[in-house]
Amino acid sequence: MAIRKIALNTGGGDAPGLNAVIRSAVHSALHRGWECVGIRDGYNGILEPDEYPHNGIIPLTHQSVRGITHLGGTILGTTNRGNPLNFPVRQSDGTYLEINRVDELLTRFHDEGIDALVAIGGDGSLKIANAFVEKGFPVVGVPKTIDNDIFGTEVTFGFDSAVSFATECIDRLHSTAESHHRVIVVEVMGRYAGWIALHAGVAGTADAILIPEIPYSIDKIAAKVIERDERGRHFSIIVVAEGAKPVDGETSIIGKSIGQAERLGGAGERIVHQIEALTGKESRLVVLGHLLRGGAPTTFDRLLSLRFGAAAVRSLADGMSGVMVGLEASQIHCVPFNEVAGKMRGVPTNSDIILTAKDLGITFGD
Amino acid sequence: MAIRKIALNTGGGDAPGLNAVIRSAVHSALHRGWECVGIRDGYNGILEPDEYPHNGIIPLTHQSVRGITHLGGTILGTTNRGNPLNFPVRQSDGTYLEINRVDELLTRFHDEGIDALVAIGGDGSLKIANAFVEKGFPVVGVPKTIDNDIFGTEVTFGFDSAVSFATECIDRLHSTAESHHRVIVVEVMGRYAGWIALHAGVAGTADAILIPEIPYSIDKIAAKVIERDERGRHFSIIVVAEGAKPVDGETSIIGKSIGQAERLGGAGERIVHQIEALTGKESRLVVLGHLLRGGAPTTFDRLLSLRFGAAAVRSLADGMSGVMVGLEASQIHCVPFNEVAGKMRGVPTNSDIILTAKDLGITFGD
Amino acid sequence: MAIRKIALNTGGGDAPGLNAVIRSAVHSALHRGWECVGIRDGYNGILEPDEYPHNGIIPLTHQSVRGITHLGGTILGTTNRGNPLNFPVRQSDGTYLEINRVDELLTRFHDEGIDALVAIGGDGSLKIANAFVEKGFPVVGVPKTIDNDIFGTEVTFGFDSAVSFATECIDRLHSTAESHHRVIVVEVMGRYAGWIALHAGVAGTADAILIPEIPYSIDKIAAKVIERDERGRHFSIIVVAEGAKPVDGETSIIGKSIGQAERLGGAGERIVHQIEALTGKESRLVVLGHLLRGGAPTTFDRLLSLRFGAAAVRSLADGMSGVMVGLEASQIHCVPFNEVAGKMRGVPTNSDIILTAKDLGITFGD
Amino acid sequence: MAIRKIALNTGGGDAPGLNAVIRSAVHSALHRGWECVGIRDGYNGILEPDEYPHNGIIPLTHQSVRGITHLGGTILGTTNRGNPLNFPVRQSDGTYLEINRVDELLTRFHDEGIDALVAIGGDGSLKIANAFVEKGFPVVGVPKTIDNDIFGTEVTFGFDSAVSFATECIDRLHSTAESHHRVIVVEVMGRYAGWIALHAGVAGTADAILIPEIPYSIDKIAAKVIERDERGRHFSIIVVAEGAKPVDGETSIIGKSIGQAERLGGAGERIVHQIEALTGKESRLVVLGHLLRGGAPTTFDRLLSLRFGAAAVRSLADGMSGVMVGLEASQIHCVPFNEVAGKMRGVPTNSDIILTAKDLGITFGD
Repeated sequence: MAIRKIALNTGGGDAPGLNAVIRSAVHSALHRGWECVGIRDGYNGILEPDEYPHNGIIPLTHQSVRGITHLGGTILGTTNRGNPLNFPVRQSDGTYLEINRVDELLTRFHDEGIDALVAIGGDGSLKIANAFVEKGFPVVGVPKTIDNDIFGTEVTFGFDSAVSFATECIDRLHSTAESHHRVIVVEVMGRYAGWIALHAGVAGTADAILIPEIPYSIDKIAAKVIERDERGRHFSIIVVAEGAKPVDGETSIIGKSIGQAERLGGAGERIVHQIEALTGKESRLVVLGHLLRGGAPTTFDRLLSLRFGAAAVRSLADGMSGVMVGLEASQIHCVPFNEVAGKMRGVPTNSDIILTAKDLGITFGD
Repeated sequence: MAIRKIALNTGGGDAPGLNAVIRSAVHSALHRGWECVGIRDGYNGILEPDEYPHNGIIPLTHQSVRGITHLGGTILGTTNRGNPLNFPVRQSDGTYLEINRVDELLTRFHDEGIDALVAIGGDGSLKIANAFVEKGFPVVGVPKTIDNDIFGTEVTFGFDSAVSFATECIDRLHSTAESHHRVIVVEVMGRYAGWIALHAGVAGTADAILIPEIPYSIDKIAAKVIERDERGRHFSIIVVAEGAKPVDGETSIIGKSIGQAERLGGAGERIVHQIEALTGKESRLVVLGHLLRGGAPTTFDRLLSLRFGAAAVRSLADGMSGVMVGLEASQIHCVPFNEVAGKMRGVPTNSDIILTAKDLGITFGD
Repeated sequence: MAIRKIALNTGGGDAPGLNAVIRSAVHSALHRGWECVGIRDGYNGILEPDEYPHNGIIPLTHQSVRGITHLGGTILGTTNRGNPLNFPVRQSDGTYLEINRVDELLTRFHDEGIDALVAIGGDGSLKIANAFVEKGFPVVGVPKTIDNDIFGTEVTFGFDSAVSFATECIDRLHSTAESHHRVIVVEVMGRYAGWIALHAGVAGTADAILIPEIPYSIDKIAAKVIERDERGRHFSIIVVAEGAKPVDGETSIIGKSIGQAERLGGAGERIVHQIEALTGKESRLVVLGHLLRGGAPTTFDRLLSLRFGAAAVRSLADGMSGVMVGLEASQIHCVPFNEVAGKMRGVPTNSDIILTAKDLGITFGD
Repeated sequence: MAIRKIALNTGGGDAPGLNAVIRSAVHSALHRGWECVGIRDGYNGILEPDEYPHNGIIPLTHQSVRGITHLGGTILGTTNRGNPLNFPVRQSDGTYLEINRVDELLTRFHDEGIDALVAIGGDGSLKIANAFVEKGFPVVGVPKTIDNDIFGTEVTFGFDSAVSFATECIDRLHSTAESHHRVIVVEVMGRYAGWIALHAGVAGTADAILIPEIPYSIDKIAAKVIERDERGRHFSIIVVAEGAKPVDGETSIIGKSIGQAERLGGAGERIVHQIEALTGKESRLVVLGHLLRGGAPTTFDRLLSLRFGAAAVRSLADGMSGVMVGLEASQIHCVPFNEVAGKMRGVPTNSDIILTAKDLGITFGD
């Protein structure tokens, strides 16, 4: 079936580059003579159409995407009220029942004349997209995660932006740490994978980097701080992924639900107290989480986003569906959803970046 | 007496531009045929000379200050072990006695052939400098505070850098707050004066700004958040100076000792809990403190630092002493220490920036 | 007469901060219950209404100015087809007659119900604005010039942005010049005043700075390059304002018409050839002109723009007219047009920045 | 033979990241218990030892590389007086004879106890390195080119920095071009390959991109400018690699010697005149060349540089020689010199980035 009209949506959290993906997909669709529309706030524009102008689906033209390449956020919004696979509906007795609203979405697509979807999102978004594909509706996915841990692509947009800003923050903390003779623990995103901590920690010349892939011994971290102190370097910078876990495994947010994890907090707080106790040095925590998601994309991320958006539309035009675009050996490729779903791409512990870090004198606490 | 050799030192916390002040003062001194040396770590290089190479006083040449204009931190170090006006000395019974070590410092100056001092620091540093002046030793001061609250100068170096970075952080938090429908409370430095919060809050288009100069009603802040929510703006950014205080005055770090204030924490934590309770909206705290002190100076701060460093040496050459250089109506001027000491320059509540903020729809909670 | 509706326009070239002025003026007007509209492309929206939607005057609402504070350019456009004081009209014989179209503009203002104007522009724009004032129509001006040479304000928005970017460029050229043993001549804007060259040259640690206010001897500049070479510094950076002039006065764009000046070119080209001839060192010209006008405003310029926009509306609300807002001693003030018109604010040759530059070893060729 | 001491040198032009390579290689060598030294100015420190302290070879310690990761330039210098393979020596009759000085270099290495070399440079540097390898002296190469056209690695350090700055410049030129209704031609580096023009042109949303790999028809470029003008977009940005060539092939710097190429100039100047003639629109040239080589590396380039430096030392430790480190599929690998030498990696004309560009409405003039 020839495509005449496609829809785009963005799901999950914010990532620098979302608007560039949108702009590129819109231009690529219009360039083929297709119409293009956007669904507001994940699938919420369809699930709760009364809350939106145009019933939650807005036309996307050259004019609507002008000048947005370098803007953070997303012009479509990302916040879902609920997942359409198990959408919570309040019952008369006050309890909630979860219902599957996929057919409703497909009906609306049909009513609007939408022939295919470009779904921009993380693991959860791809699962929803797969439900459409299983019912015969064409979808191509664009991977989105700041954490860079999606399987099937070497790198995701937003990651370079997050690493760059985290590195700038580490740079800034160096002079403060040095002038106040302090230990500063910098917590960055990375619940399951330590990519941001590793890249920013090496680029920013941290003294220790703690990531989920390498369980750490707090004693080895403290020993590093003390060893530096003894040779006149009276400060240390420790970069910690929020999901870093100690060797004894006793405390970690890995495997916890998001709710549990939020209550538990990132790994940074525990570490700052332990280091202060073990070394006697004043220690401070700086949490960068919210700062890393927002902001303008770096040039690298702008370009990657533009490539992903155009590749998604090209793939649809080529008759593909049920695939996610990704980067492999610096080239665009397509990966079937079922090869991606439920997998996670962690830092290989024999990565040359880890070898580089160790040669630079950085400890992982292993 | 003709000057042949001067010393420089930097005291108190870090501020972007310190190295530019040093470079400019060194060039200006050498240009007059003077020698120039630097005292390490405030006055610690003299008070504890055994811990340093060259007994804590290093020669400063063109070579030693090459390429440092844009670097954060200070090549001289800032950390004092103790204030020479009341230096803590451990007694045999384990208690501490505070002694005045000003004469020791002057003796060392004399022994080293140092004829005058350029003291770069905050209020505390100027008090020490004044003790030298009272004993007849020539000193010119260069004001240093990130908070911009020193009396006698319109602006201090490092302030523009801090405001710029805080504004960039607020920019970044906008898209995260918006995509997650959250309230984000951004705490910035400003124990007694709200300059950073005011400038960054207006430039970054915050929704509320809380500063020590204008006691806030938490109810009015919450009302603002709710009013925005009701007209479809489901997020708010509240910028808070650490010393912001509520109208009832019950909790504030103002007037507390630094130790008490650190235990009490900045104003942000309390506010984030109150806002969450009053509005029912998810609220998060981002503390920028440590990030604002470090880093490279902005171009504005580079130039201001170079001007201050050169002006301090020019003033010494003109026979001045006991004065601080400052900026008034964009021109360099000199202010006697005794007109500056113990005073604080807060934000005037009729400032046009506050009027501008109000016209932009920003509330101060008043 | 109570104001119910105002118009804004932007004239002349681009300057970072124009959109922030617009946003602030719009909010300030709406906040007072006024309506607000914008005239497209200077006065062109009125002079050639057929070429524009809405006949060249667009409504300005909160929505139209959302998210523009940090964007370069102006949402209103700046390009005039012609000056309304002497607008060129083609005659049947092919010649052009210049006619005064001020009354036409006032008639349109009247027809649209516009009660007052905020005119954002340079010297030329203020002259046009004054023609309205003389006919009894209220206008407040906002000064706009990258060159920072408008009389009546210590600083104009866009200047800090231009200086910051020029300084970054000079930083970048240092390592290239050094690694290739070259002389690099950097030409910046400044037809009549050397503010950008002076500030960026000092902040970027140039070796020579040539500005219109201090006629230069090319031999002295060459001597500086040779002197550096002889002590092992095999490169030099010379920052040149486009209007810099030699002591013999033979070649300069000062006093030339814009057309003549463009043909003559900036001062940089001539200097690069002379330096190469006099020193035998490879020399290169880098012209920054077009790069300095565009781009996002710095935080300093954002805030200044917001202050100017709000102050202009406040002044209208206070019943003022025929005045320009400006900054004096860091405070907003108002200056009558006739105290500003036709005057130019050059760099005072006894400025402390020039003294600082000389202490840093920078030559002005004097 | 066990390595006990290695030398590093940097050759050819400047590239952001050189200092990070040096720092990483030094740490990696010291970490293995090796000594480490640096040769000044390519091989000049050895070829003309009298001109340098330490006879042109300086010890490299932790202290000598502290804080240089983010600095542009190279602490070793890059300028060769001459290529040691054919070094020009002035004869008594005033003519120059070219001699091979490789043996001299090896003798000095032997005398200094240097067991191996890390040679950081471009194609020319690798040829010299190969001459050492052929005589049995161990060398590992680190590729260096801003243009990103070295065969055997997906990307070189400095490229991301150059693309990022070029993109920022294009961003800035947009608002100037738009407000003045101009065509702006931006010339970037790329004598043989169009990588910088392509990446920056797409990321910066240029209207046309001209690269050596795709000969352009000037008429098609002019048609694009006119087509935009007719639909109300009265400005255009054309990004040109210096080596771009027209379809008729009549003028191009490709294949010319560097001297000839410099006389011919980059492709930009010719294009700006042709566009002005063909479209009647005011057109301006902005040449970014010198600005792209200098400056601090981006975070991406910092990390890549650190990886390359460490990988080079690891390779030596593993007994490798005659190889260049590179990146393939985001992993470090080693490529023999003879597979790299004399080859050039251009932009594949079926690259997905080119397809993306075309979908975005960007023309290549083909």
